[in-house]
Amino acid sequence: MAKTKELSKDVRDKIVDLHKAGMDYKTIAKQLESIIENSTPGGQILAESKQRSSSDNINPPQTSDNTCIPKDFSCIYSKDLLPALSGEDTTKGFFQELVSVLLSYVCKSFRRSSKVLDFHHPHQLREGLEGFSLDLPDQPENLEQLLVDCRDTLKYGVKTGHPRFFNQLSSGLDVIGLAGEWLTSTANTNMFTYEVSPVFILMEEVLLRKMQEIVGWSEEEGDGVFCPGGTMSNLYSVLLARYHFFPESHYSVKKSAAVLGIGSENVVVVKCDDRGKMIPAELESSIITAKDQGCVPFYVNATAGTTVYGAFDPLNAIADICESHGLWLHVDAAWGGGLLMSKRHRVKLQGIERAWSVTWNPHKMMGAPLQCSAILVKKRGLLQACNQLCAEYLFQTDKHYDTSYDTGDKTIQCGRHVDVFKLWLMWKAKGSEGFESQVNKCLENAEHLFDKIKQRPDFELVFKGKPEHSNVCFWYIPPSLRKMPPGPERNRRLHEVAPKIKAKMMEQGMAMIGYQPLGDKVNFFRCVFSNPATQTEDVDYLLEEIACLGHDICIRIETNL
Amino acid sequence: MAKTKELSKDVRDKIVDLHKAGMDYKTIAKQLESIIENSTPGGQILAESKQRSSSDNINPPQTSDNTCIPKDFSCIYSKDLLPALSGEDTTKGFFQELVSVLLSYVCKSFRRSSKVLDFHHPHQLREGLEGFSLDLPDQPENLEQLLVDCRDTLKYGVKTGHPRFFNQLSSGLDVIGLAGEWLTSTANTNMFTYEVSPVFILMEEVLLRKMQEIVGWSEEEGDGVFCPGGTMSNLYSVLLARYHFFPESHYSVKKSAAVLGIGSENVVVVKCDDRGKMIPAELESSIITAKDQGCVPFYVNATAGTTVYGAFDPLNAIADICESHGLWLHVDAAWGGGLLMSKRHRVKLQGIERAWSVTWNPHKMMGAPLQCSAILVKKRGLLQACNQLCAEYLFQTDKHYDTSYDTGDKTIQCGRHVDVFKLWLMWKAKGSEGFESQVNKCLENAEHLFDKIKQRPDFELVFKGKPEHSNVCFWYIPPSLRKMPPGPERNRRLHEVAPKIKAKMMEQGMAMIGYQPLGDKVNFFRCVFSNPATQTEDVDYLLEEIACLGHDICIRIETNL
Repeated sequence: MAKTKELSKDVRDKIVDLHKAGMDYKTIAKQLESIIENSTPGGQILAESKQRSSSDNINPPQTSDNTCIPKDFSCIYSKDLLPALSGEDTTKGFFQELVSVLLSYVCKSFRRSSKVLDFHHPHQLREGLEGFSLDLPDQPENLEQLLVDCRDTLKYGVKTGHPRFFNQLSSGLDVIGLAGEWLTSTANTNMFTYEVSPVFILMEEVLLRKMQEIVGWSEEEGDGVFCPGGTMSNLYSVLLARYHFFPESHYSVKKSAAVLGIGSENVVVVKCDDRGKMIPAELESSIITAKDQGCVPFYVNATAGTTVYGAFDPLNAIADICESHGLWLHVDAAWGGGLLMSKRHRVKLQGIERAWSVTWNPHKMMGAPLQCSAILVKKRGLLQACNQLCAEYLFQTDKHYDTSYDTGDKTIQCGRHVDVFKLWLMWKAKGSEGFESQVNKCLENAEHLFDKIKQRPDFELVFKGKPEHSNVCFWYIPPSLRKMPPGPERNRRLHEVAPKIKAKMMEQGMAMIGYQPLGDKVNFFRCVFSNPATQTEDVDYLLEEIACLGHDICIRIETNL
Repeated sequence: MAKTKELSKDVRDKIVDLHKAGMDYKTIAKQLESIIENSTPGGQILAESKQRSSSDNINPPQTSDNTCIPKDFSCIYSKDLLPALSGEDTTKGFFQELVSVLLSYVCKSFRRSSKVLDFHHPHQLREGLEGFSLDLPDQPENLEQLLVDCRDTLKYGVKTGHPRFFNQLSSGLDVIGLAGEWLTSTANTNMFTYEVSPVFILMEEVLLRKMQEIVGWSEEEGDGVFCPGGTMSNLYSVLLARYHFFPESHYSVKKSAAVLGIGSENVVVVKCDDRGKMIPAELESSIITAKDQGCVPFYVNATAGTTVYGAFDPLNAIADICESHGLWLHVDAAWGGGLLMSKRHRVKLQGIERAWSVTWNPHKMMGAPLQCSAILVKKRGLLQACNQLCAEYLFQTDKHYDTSYDTGDKTIQCGRHVDVFKLWLMWKAKGSEGFESQVNKCLENAEHLFDKIKQRPDFELVFKGKPEHSNVCFWYIPPSLRKMPPGPERNRRLHEVAPKIKAKMMEQGMAMIGYQPLGDKVNFFRCVFSNPATQTEDVDYLLEEIACLGHDICIRIETNL
């Protein structure tokens, strides 16, 4: 266990003298750190952290100046931690070291001088890079090794919070959200019943109510639940719509058999315009055609913020059609929902208040840590009616508190991870206004990128119009293709450009962006902004990086001719 | 931002002198803490933590002796944290304070002198106890307030890691698992593709492989995925079975419409014996009856460790029947899977290797933090074939690495939370052997409880036989009922006993246990052990507590006569 060296009595006395001389101990300790930081690296702290970080650039932990607590974990095992008797100090010491590793990573994530990723192929990682073994042992490993493993896990991962990570709709590392996640995992409970999650259940209620209000529903309307991701939220919406219109199809004795059952042949894809927005007239004619064929359309899924183009469907026009045909309108605002926080941009979701259900993922545009997704349902009670099995062995109704707060029977998952606290804490920390400026900033970054691309001959926008969301889609046009006439040969070559640039970019690790083909458009880059750490300089950097890597690559394409 | 007081030059020099006298700075710092801890509580550190913990008993953080870092957060806001310029120190300081709060909670969770919960009704919490407001502001709140909110959130929650929390299948607070969760949330990524989760994707592969090996599948067999809870894992199994037998029903253009569709009228409940084990002859006759009615049975769900009784179905006998009728055998070992880690107890799951799919939740018997659940599938490739939509706009196949590691298209969720790292880290820390002794210990606790109850006249076991899992089901029999003959009146009264004891127990907050009725059995307690912190003394405590609370309550029942 902890081996503390004894301080000789006279040195001890000298420190006490310092205190008597009017210096409080905290100030002494504070100053000590800066002295230690500026001293030669002979100190044990620095030496130890060197050992753990010998193979990377993570700074030595600057927070590990604690005392009475072990620093050397090579002879300490998990059995020495809590609940072991007198395991408190050892546990605290271990967490201090861990927190040093984690905070170094957090700080590094925000530094532009650090790489976004250090790419290795699956087989390389699998084989154990620099001694980082993924294998599961029969015998315990010591805590020193575990700390090294933690560092390596982060080292070989991707810094999704880096200002130049543009690869995913979810990006950024909100440190308040992170604090919320640490607390959530420390509380280690389940959204199953009020009795095991009293605070989190109420926070979910408060958050859902707030989100419903923002969507525009009245006080009498609104229900919902946080679920594991937008796909599950959408799944709930279809389930509810079917239950609403066809309650007899309540497929439920076992919940696993309770979910859906709509054939793919019954899913009609409605035509969109060039910008990816649903064409209302197409929707209406699809409905009429389906009815003519003897089908019973009951559910329309409109999107507020598509994944690739960031397109917003015209919700009011779609709601008119749904109303006249008596259809359930679901709005998938997983990505676009964040814009509701902004007075400037929420106009793009006009009509969302007419939806019967809404998917909204705060882990996307609002920057909450993964995962945080809500399904909001306008009609109260439907979630419970649709999903409840009333299994008395799980949900006792004779408990001494208001068991309507036991949400487990409203869901298809039964137990649920606590995804609400981080969002609640972020809301406290930023206020609605903080989210508003965060969203506005992301959209300003998108406009900046759009403006830059318009001015450059080596890039081409997929759409000429100003972006509505933070998605900007574009091609890099290598020199050899700039004068080539449009046509299949140019397309064939252009299609290869983005993957090659991305491969190079991942190898270099200084930025990350996604690409994809869509419809008749060959591979193009999609840049999205959801990370408040990203500045316009990062946007400029991205374009330069692509141009630089692309120029290089196109030469090889040419030699392939 | 951080205001650091200047240390006068002469004091600074004295510290440097201490160093020159042969004392390294770390030792000085270490000793300083103990001096500070033993000094009068006039120091600023103690004063501040008092402020934050004025209304509860959380110890002042013992780890906050860091320097150059703000301690007073009442004028600091989230905008001052990273990614703010020079936000590193402030961020570190905030996390140090947070970690103090969290580690105090962790230590307290394991102390028997602390309460398991501090119960309040929903309306009380909703109204804002002691200034703890759940409302979401428009304006940001300062970080000091956020730290207070964090403390309050934990204060009003339930300590699921407390050695006397017996309420749920998931209990305990594995500190290594917790470390894993903190790292996971810091990494803040998604099991979507290899490119954003290279390490976690490989860890999932390693863990699944290990679990399949433990189940008993050959090297050529085995696939799987971690999902959000056992219900979802089971849902996958039904989905896969249907796809396997009826691939034409691949309902998939939209994943939301891809899931299941089996009417409740088509779910046949097979009769169990008194101990809750499926009766193989009943299964066989159900299959024959269904076939005679023109139905096509295709899926059998056997349970290894039921929720209430902890019963294990006879897997080999069931597998024989499934084989002879060509049915998919799924084993729901969400709760019982942990016993596979124990040479002594895995015999109870004999035959599991014959299953086509297995649900196994390490967040239950293996003590991993919530949530951690896996669906294991014997036949490789089926998950992908069943669930893939091959959306090129999400999963590009022209990337430069082996894209078979992009697992997003194998799942119905698309994006997925990282649930593997904590389990991986726990496995490293404990080894397979550590899990084995943990499981053995939980079952020894169950046997201890069983033995104790057998000896007491005031308790009655629901089953006479020794527990197979760690579930022990029993009634407390109040004095007035002890001599009453069995019959409806005794049952009516006995049914009220457990809820009343539980209500009292929650108000007192010193332990927590669940109850439920089942079949013809009126409300009985179900004690489950999955927390390695629980000792036999805690088991004894529980019985005394129930007897004490029950004795009190039954008087009131009698006066109701």
